[in-house]
Amino acid sequence: MTPSGAGLVAHSGGPTAVINASLLGVVEEARKRSAFSALYGARFGIQGILRGEFFDLFAQPEATLRAVSEAPASALGTSRLEVGEAELEHALAVMRTRNIRYFFYTGGNGSMGTASQMERMARTIGYELAVIGIPKTIDNDLTVTDHTPGYPTTARFFAAAVRDIGADNRALPGQVEFVEVLGRNTGWVVAATLLARAEPEDAPHLIYLPEQPLPLEQLLEDVDRVFRRLGRCVVAVCEGQLDEHSEPFGADVRAGSRGSLASNLGHRLSILVQERLKIRARAEKPGLLGRSSRAEMPLIDWVEAKECGAAAVRAARAGVSGQMVTLVRRQAAVYESTTGLTPLEQVAFVERAFPPEWRSPSGNDISPAFLDYIVPLTGALPAHARLHYGIK
Amino acid sequence: MTPSGAGLVAHSGGPTAVINASLLGVVEEARKRSAFSALYGARFGIQGILRGEFFDLFAQPEATLRAVSEAPASALGTSRLEVGEAELEHALAVMRTRNIRYFFYTGGNGSMGTASQMERMARTIGYELAVIGIPKTIDNDLTVTDHTPGYPTTARFFAAAVRDIGADNRALPGQVEFVEVLGRNTGWVVAATLLARAEPEDAPHLIYLPEQPLPLEQLLEDVDRVFRRLGRCVVAVCEGQLDEHSEPFGADVRAGSRGSLASNLGHRLSILVQERLKIRARAEKPGLLGRSSRAEMPLIDWVEAKECGAAAVRAARAGVSGQMVTLVRRQAAVYESTTGLTPLEQVAFVERAFPPEWRSPSGNDISPAFLDYIVPLTGALPAHARLHYGIK
Repeated sequence: MTPSGAGLVAHSGGPTAVINASLLGVVEEARKRSAFSALYGARFGIQGILRGEFFDLFAQPEATLRAVSEAPASALGTSRLEVGEAELEHALAVMRTRNIRYFFYTGGNGSMGTASQMERMARTIGYELAVIGIPKTIDNDLTVTDHTPGYPTTARFFAAAVRDIGADNRALPGQVEFVEVLGRNTGWVVAATLLARAEPEDAPHLIYLPEQPLPLEQLLEDVDRVFRRLGRCVVAVCEGQLDEHSEPFGADVRAGSRGSLASNLGHRLSILVQERLKIRARAEKPGLLGRSSRAEMPLIDWVEAKECGAAAVRAARAGVSGQMVTLVRRQAAVYESTTGLTPLEQVAFVERAFPPEWRSPSGNDISPAFLDYIVPLTGALPAHARLHYGIK
Repeated sequence: MTPSGAGLVAHSGGPTAVINASLLGVVEEARKRSAFSALYGARFGIQGILRGEFFDLFAQPEATLRAVSEAPASALGTSRLEVGEAELEHALAVMRTRNIRYFFYTGGNGSMGTASQMERMARTIGYELAVIGIPKTIDNDLTVTDHTPGYPTTARFFAAAVRDIGADNRALPGQVEFVEVLGRNTGWVVAATLLARAEPEDAPHLIYLPEQPLPLEQLLEDVDRVFRRLGRCVVAVCEGQLDEHSEPFGADVRAGSRGSLASNLGHRLSILVQERLKIRARAEKPGLLGRSSRAEMPLIDWVEAKECGAAAVRAARAGVSGQMVTLVRRQAAVYESTTGLTPLEQVAFVERAFPPEWRSPSGNDISPAFLDYIVPLTGALPAHARLHYGIK
């Protein structure tokens, strides 16, 4: 096949630490196969398409693309703009002016919905366009795919944060410590803080899943019990956790567009604990640092993100359209993954909850069985060394 | 000299990422010189002394101490207990039962005050005891010493946090982002976020020092100006920042003992910006992660922390008492430091403010001259790579 048109990559939604690795995967694969007559990158996602603002990706030096792939956040820029039919039509008109025939949309389940609409509309108006989704979300809430690029890095970031804050809490006890974790509706990230617990009495002492409402009284009982036993307590809780009335415990939780939250939930819970239990409490909220820091990035996340980009190009060149690349876990003694494809409709607007079988019956912990799933993605988290007890 | 008594190490106040390196320095130097008949570590600081709870440090395997020196937070445990004359007397009585003649107190300016009182009381009651202070505080607010172990790691942590959150803000603009930084009264840590600014338009766009009251109207004007120009804005602000009425902008700032804060200042400022300027705003608060994470630790911080511990033992064995170890910057083309000594009284309860000459006249930035001071301690912060503009 000879290049019959140009390609276009766009990013959508919140950036991750490895979204630029997927970009590198697209560009390298496209170059290798001389797949497209040109390759554009939309500046600030769908907005860049609507405004006709593009990077020329084939013009970027190889070294620049490599270096960019090692930077977090989106090098193209991304957008949370919600688009309707008019915008999609306009976007297709812009694509036509540049003979863009391959569209790679990198995002989560909402973005896959947009990609799917774009594909249908192109078909309706008779514009030949292959649309391929590239998965990206720290939330890990896409169906079909085993996991999503970006999730392993964020999962490990928060696990390390809970380990380190837990070490601080152990060294200077007498305090309850809330760690507010990214995650509005699903608990994949907060569940990963289980990796921090090297010894049974280590943080996190309590992990709550936003899939389950958390009655304030249960939280207070749980915290009180742990604190009485250990004299300290670290609680991992999602920014989107709700109580039994589907309220955020009186916290100031402002919703941004498309799932982003500005929340002070951890701080609010620390106030409630302090008022009700008379135990000193505080909260930390690494927040967006949890998706933009590469300090804890597992290499596999970068590798798989890049591979998803490459697989998208191969699929497009093979005549596929209306599909999203997936990661497929191979059953093997040593972790291995490959890529697959799934219809965009299958993943569009569907949120994959944290599975019930990995929740603990107590409602405040995660089953160790979850480790079999996550450790291959994040690696084990090294425990901090401790002095031998030997008090005399 | 032959060992004429036992040594005792205790930690005080908030842990740092390298306080265990100072512990290693004490133990290694003491072993090498056969300096003491025994070496104890107080479990949970002054509380451990009062309760008679000690680690036997000579009994710890070398490998354990090495590994512990690479863990953040205090391996001995620390305390914020405020002690009066009665406790000091009791502590000396406990020391006498173990023939402890060398006391190494690792802490900040408050702890150096306690150490000084302990030394005077021992002299008063005729108990022969050498007291040496080992500097430790992420706040870098001790006088005399060039800087304090723990500061470089925390400074670099927050600089990297602002760089990464800044990359996220650049990729997905339209939002004001507050990064709440550790620091109650002094701006040494928040000033270090200047390291993140590789290009003039990079984060942090505004840096405020708690040494200067910040009128809300000034903050709003500053934010508005930056946001109008760039469409985004990252503000680095201390947890202890006060407005022109010496109030925390209506934030819920609860003081713990001895300088610790539980604050939601950043979040509060984000609400004010959103309400007053109608710009979407949010806040992140890495909080205690900024003193317990080693992800960004510069090796020099570990090395100097260890050296401070070793210097304390050498001083004690040389007959010194009532002094704190200091770090002295040598004037050389390449950064070099050595240790010195200063009377405990000199540093006790004195807070070193961020120097006026490194504040920018605008009141919302740091002078680049500060970089000459800090870069040798933290290293330069690598900038994230960017695509070449080349929009077409």
